[in-house]
Amino acid sequence: MHRKMATLLAGALLATGATAHAAGDEEEKAVEYRESVFHVMGHNFKPMGAMMKGEIDFDAEEFATRAERVSQLAHMPMEGFMEGTADVADSEAKPGIWENWEDFQGKMEDLQETSAELAEVAQGGDKGAIAPKFKAVGESCKACHDDYKED
Amino acid sequence: MHRKMATLLAGALLATGATAHAAGDEEEKAVEYRESVFHVMGHNFKPMGAMMKGEIDFDAEEFATRAERVSQLAHMPMEGFMEGTADVADSEAKPGIWENWEDFQGKMEDLQETSAELAEVAQGGDKGAIAPKFKAVGESCKACHDDYKED
Repeated sequence: MHRKMATLLAGALLATGATAHAAGDEEEKAVEYRESVFHVMGHNFKPMGAMMKGEIDFDAEEFATRAERVSQLAHMPMEGFMEGTADVADSEAKPGIWENWEDFQGKMEDLQETSAELAEVAQGGDKGAIAPKFKAVGESCKACHDDYKED
Repeated sequence: MHRKMATLLAGALLATGATAHAAGDEEEKAVEYRESVFHVMGHNFKPMGAMMKGEIDFDAEEFATRAERVSQLAHMPMEGFMEGTADVADSEAKPGIWENWEDFQGKMEDLQETSAELAEVAQGGDKGAIAPKFKAVGESCKACHDDYKED
């Protein structure tokens, strides 16, 4: 249901935002929304990284909870990428997103898939089994950031 | 697992934050985290309210997706309420939270329960069955805001 919903919403938002116009309240709210989602995601992802690197103790229960959150959050930001939101001040999203919408959407779906796999394997609490799945999520993040996020 | 995790985290954070001190980076990050969670929650809750009031068309699929998100998000903010974060500039949390920690924690658990019930009934798409469950979530929000959130 999640995927279908995201696609529906994205389509609807693209349709309503098809006319070029300056950033208004709607657009600013969309940017604030997506940035909030990514902030919550990053806050949960960071300690998972520290655990995998051995910077802090590996806590299987905490890791699994955070992995589940990242997987849930991966379904939330898309509606914040409505047309016209590239112009909003302080947005870190590159205009290339809307020029390559299907590629961007595909990369978000990659994150949804890799983070779901990580959340599932994290239930087992086996750090060795978790490692490649965690790496895949990191690569999903990076693939999108490299192309579509301002440094 | 979620509830146990939240309790564990809250306990750990209370323990580490037991000494009174001025707000630093850790505290500011905690505030930014919890505010981001509530922002994402509010963004998803608002259109549900508009649908229930008939201000916008009732879309059963969208409603169910947003209800599920609110239910997921209800498990995320607690770790942002670490001790010492009442002093952070612009925080809307009242110091009473830490003076009545068990009550605050109980109110957050109420939100987790009412939002889980809403997410479940929302799967059925029956607006009449959804209405009382939606009202209960709104009351969970309000009960906590009345006591613990600055206007």
